[in-house]
Amino acid sequence: MAIPRTGIGVDVHAYDEHPSPEAVLHLAGLAWPGERPLAGHSDADVAAHAAADALLSAAGLGDLGSNFGTSEPQWAGAAGATLLAEAARRVRDAGFEIGNVAVQVIGNRPRLGQRRAEAEAALSSAAGAPVSVSATTTDGLGLTGRGEGVAAIASAIVVASD
Amino acid sequence: MAIPRTGIGVDVHAYDEHPSPEAVLHLAGLAWPGERPLAGHSDADVAAHAAADALLSAAGLGDLGSNFGTSEPQWAGAAGATLLAEAARRVRDAGFEIGNVAVQVIGNRPRLGQRRAEAEAALSSAAGAPVSVSATTTDGLGLTGRGEGVAAIASAIVVASD
Amino acid sequence: MAIPRTGIGVDVHAYDEHPSPEAVLHLAGLAWPGERPLAGHSDADVAAHAAADALLSAAGLGDLGSNFGTSEPQWAGAAGATLLAEAARRVRDAGFEIGNVAVQVIGNRPRLGQRRAEAEAALSSAAGAPVSVSATTTDGLGLTGRGEGVAAIASAIVVASD
Repeated sequence: MAIPRTGIGVDVHAYDEHPSPEAVLHLAGLAWPGERPLAGHSDADVAAHAAADALLSAAGLGDLGSNFGTSEPQWAGAAGATLLAEAARRVRDAGFEIGNVAVQVIGNRPRLGQRRAEAEAALSSAAGAPVSVSATTTDGLGLTGRGEGVAAIASAIVVASD
Repeated sequence: MAIPRTGIGVDVHAYDEHPSPEAVLHLAGLAWPGERPLAGHSDADVAAHAAADALLSAAGLGDLGSNFGTSEPQWAGAAGATLLAEAARRVRDAGFEIGNVAVQVIGNRPRLGQRRAEAEAALSSAAGAPVSVSATTTDGLGLTGRGEGVAAIASAIVVASD
Repeated sequence: MAIPRTGIGVDVHAYDEHPSPEAVLHLAGLAWPGERPLAGHSDADVAAHAAADALLSAAGLGDLGSNFGTSEPQWAGAAGATLLAEAARRVRDAGFEIGNVAVQVIGNRPRLGQRRAEAEAALSSAAGAPVSVSATTTDGLGLTGRGEGVAAIASAIVVASD
């Protein structure tokens, strides 16, 4: 086995200050009815975005912006889990096997604990590899502690296929 | 060897604004008499907490909240190094060997440099695996730069035992 | 192969509020004429610094402060890419092979996309190993979203040489 390659990804989105009545929070591959939505041109799923960025970074394939930006308008508005699935496909097409992805959600709301297994199933299905989901808070400090938004940080491991 | 698994963990605690006279800062498995304490229901050891979360995340075993939260009250108030040791035990019980953990402390105070080897020895002893400790600052910016608290970020590698 | 070792590194620098007319932004191993410079005693290259810290952390060799601080004044003011190259040399001297480094730049400016390949070439040349460079923003939140500075986060993998 070649030395595995590490990747890292971060994403932050602000809560939507004026959400439309039908807007729904999307986080970690799940819809969260009744929770305050995050804002963004995409579905603002910071966990899926950080995971996708970590995978792309591990494979040296750029980032969400270079892969799904204005040069590929068919991805505009795509769900985070869809972008994660497509990022994983590109990583495999480039000759890498995906080991796993670990993503931690940093924020006050929603409380992920009760739906952690469901979130891991959704993101793992999208990535075609194990994605672990965890959560933490920042003791009232910083952008997440003040309740301005939600952050996620992810690491990934891939290895060149034989 | 299976492909190793990566994990990631972040933690933040605020400085205690009104510490009791006997309160002591706990960070990176060490007591720091004379330094301003961090606040928290636990000992607020952000380095040990981030390291434990990274290990749990690498093994897909959830996070500090799901492992040591209200469902397991015997861990309430436990020292960070104790939680790190128990997290490492659970990771091994789940069939993983721990490669190493790397944790970086982000903050203005305390200055870790002079006690780095001591901190690494304390956390490595707790984890039963090498834990490297490093430190950085944020140039006066953000929650740590303003001196509101201390953050830590950790990555971990584990591999399924044969 | 031994279990590879993971490392992590973060760095933040503030934009220079009163840059001298000849000051130039240095980021990810490149000069960026026309972009607002970051401030620091060094060249404030947060991407190179985070990458170097991740490598040192993976090898258990401390951090930028313990390696290039006041005890080794010959490194004062050295370019970030120079510190990354020297960190990589020390990691190899300690008996490790470097797998790769992944660094993500977090900030509003500059836009890295158009020079990503160039940045990866510069940092990979310095490290003597693949360094992937990606970028993200924080939706207007936090120190980078408010345009106060630029952050970078890096992960690294090394493995003990046979």
